Amino acid sequence: MTEVLPQGVRSRVRVPASSANLGPGFDSLGLALGIDDEIEVSTTASGLDVHVEGEGAGEVSLSSSHLVVRAVERGLDAAGIWATGLRVGCRNAIPHSRGLGSSAAAVVGGLVAANELVAGTFPEHRLTDEQLLQLASEFEGHPDNAAACIFGGATVSWSDHCGPDRRYSTAPLAVHPDIRAHVFVPTTRSSTSAARGLLPEQVPHTAAAFNAGRSALMVVALTQRPDLLLEGTEDLLHQPYRAEAMPESAQLVAALRERGIAAAISGAGPTVLALSTEQPGAAEAGLARGLGMAMRSVGVARGAARV
Amino acid sequence: MTEVLPQGVRSRVRVPASSANLGPGFDSLGLALGIDDEIEVSTTASGLDVHVEGEGAGEVSLSSSHLVVRAVERGLDAAGIWATGLRVGCRNAIPHSRGLGSSAAAVVGGLVAANELVAGTFPEHRLTDEQLLQLASEFEGHPDNAAACIFGGATVSWSDHCGPDRRYSTAPLAVHPDIRAHVFVPTTRSSTSAARGLLPEQVPHTAAAFNAGRSALMVVALTQRPDLLLEGTEDLLHQPYRAEAMPESAQLVAALRERGIAAAISGAGPTVLALSTEQPGAAEAGLARGLGMAMRSVGVARGAARV
Repeated sequence: MTEVLPQGVRSRVRVPASSANLGPGFDSLGLALGIDDEIEVSTTASGLDVHVEGEGAGEVSLSSSHLVVRAVERGLDAAGIWATGLRVGCRNAIPHSRGLGSSAAAVVGGLVAANELVAGTFPEHRLTDEQLLQLASEFEGHPDNAAACIFGGATVSWSDHCGPDRRYSTAPLAVHPDIRAHVFVPTTRSSTSAARGLLPEQVPHTAAAFNAGRSALMVVALTQRPDLLLEGTEDLLHQPYRAEAMPESAQLVAALRERGIAAAISGAGPTVLALSTEQPGAAEAGLARGLGMAMRSVGVARGAARV
Repeated sequence: MTEVLPQGVRSRVRVPASSANLGPGFDSLGLALGIDDEIEVSTTASGLDVHVEGEGAGEVSLSSSHLVVRAVERGLDAAGIWATGLRVGCRNAIPHSRGLGSSAAAVVGGLVAANELVAGTFPEHRLTDEQLLQLASEFEGHPDNAAACIFGGATVSWSDHCGPDRRYSTAPLAVHPDIRAHVFVPTTRSSTSAARGLLPEQVPHTAAAFNAGRSALMVVALTQRPDLLLEGTEDLLHQPYRAEAMPESAQLVAALRERGIAAAISGAGPTVLALSTEQPGAAEAGLARGLGMAMRSVGVARGAARV
C-alpha cells in the first residue's frame, strides 16, 4: 500500500563530488571529494517547483525531467511513498561535465533527500544504503561514482552481470588519514560517452594484467601505504587512450607524476586528480594555471548526509 | 672484499608453498600456503654435496645446476661471501609442477639459507628482505610466488618495467584470520610455460576492466571482508583460457564455486586452491577424489624462516 506524505515535510542533504576510474580501477575504484552540492526537498499541495543555484543554473531543465527530480521521485516510489507536490531546490557547487561525478551527485542527492523525507514520517519505509546504491547505479549504468557518493571515502564497486536485473555492489575502504586530494579543474568540458568511445575493444593481455596488479596495489596504497600511491595509480586501460581528447590534462598528469605526485584523470576527465601526503605547492598550481586549470584542495569526503 | 665463511657453519630454513595468479590477480597476487620444504646448508672444506629427500628425490640434478644450490651460491655472492665447499640438504614436501610454487620455494630457500649462514658470521653482510625478493624474482622472472614465499601471508607484487635492471617490489597484506586455505592436488603435472602459451595476446577491454575491479576487491576480501572472497576470486584473464589444458581442475573450480566456495586455479595449475571461512566437508573432498585430486588443509603460511 502506498502511503502519502503530508505537506510541509522537508529534508536537506549534501552530496559530495567523486572521482571514478581511479588510476587503474576503471569502472570500479571511486573516491568521494570535498565539493558538495546541496539539495532541499519539501512536500507541497500539488505540482512541481524546481530551483537551481550555482553550477548548471539556467542550463538544466527545471521540469520533471530534471535529474534530481527524477531521483527524488524514484526514491519515493521505491519506498512506496507518494507526495501530492514537491519543491526541489539545488545549490550546486560540483562543476558539470568535468569528470567530477555531478550526475551521480544529483541522482544520489535526490534519492537521499527523498529517503530522508520518508524516514521522518514513515521510518519503516526507509531505504537502506544498499538499496540507494542499487537505485543510483541503475540511473548511471555503473556504480563507481554513486558508491563513492553514498558511502564516502574510497569504494571498490562491481556488478554481478549485465542485464535488466543487474545487481550493483560496493565495498567501502577506510582511506589512510594522511592522504590529501586536490583537483585541477579545466574550463573545458568532457562527455563521458564520447570519452568512452575512445577506448579500444581489445587491449594487450599484458596491459590487462598490469592494471589488475596495479588496482590491487591501489587498494593497499589508499588504505595502508600512501607511499605507494604513485605506483598504485599507474594505468594502461583508459588514460593513454583518452589523452588525445584532453591534451592539457594529460600533460598535467605527466608533469605532476614526474614530480612524484600521484596524479590521474578524474572519471572520464578532463579534471585531474592528485593524491598525496603533502600539499602540492605554488609550482604545481602555476603549472596547472599555465594549462588552463585551477588547483583546488578538496580532501577526501564523507558520503551523502542530511544537513 | 670477499669474506670467507669458516667450515662447519650451518643453517636450516623452512620455506612455504605458494599460490600465484590468485583469482583475478594474474602475475601479482600471491598467497603463502602451509606446505613446507626444509633446506639445510653447511660449509665444508671443499666440493659440493647435495641430498634430496621427498618430492623430486631421484629426479632433480644433484650438481651445481640444482636450483637450491644455484640460489645458495647467488645469495652468498650477493652478500660478498665465499665458501670453500657446501653441503646442501633438501627435505621437499611441496609437490613439483603443480602450481604450488616449488621452484620459488627452492630459490627462496637457497637464498634465505645462504643469508642465515652469512648472518651468523658476518651480520653486517646480511641481505634485506627486499634484496632477497629482488634476487629471487630475477631467478623466476616474476615476483609473485617469491614475494609470498619470503613475506608470507598474501602479497601484491609488481615490477617497474621490463629489461635487465628490472626492479621487483611487493606489498604484504595482513590476511584476515578467519580465512582457511585448502588445496586439491592432482596427480598430473603442469608446465608454467606451456600454460602461459594458452593465454591470448589480446583480451576484451571489458575483461581487463573486470579483472582490475575484481583484483581490487580481492585485496579487500583477503584483508577485511572474507564474505567477498567468492566475488573477489572471479577472473577472466587466465583461468578461462587454461581450462582446456586442465579439465578436471576447471570442473572442480566450477563445482566448488557453485557451492559458494571461493576456488581458483593455483598458479598455472593444475592444483585447485579454495579459500573460505568454513572447512570444506566430506562432500567436497569426495568430489575432488572423483576427479583425481586429494584435498589438503594447508592454511595461510608465514614467510621463509630459520628453523
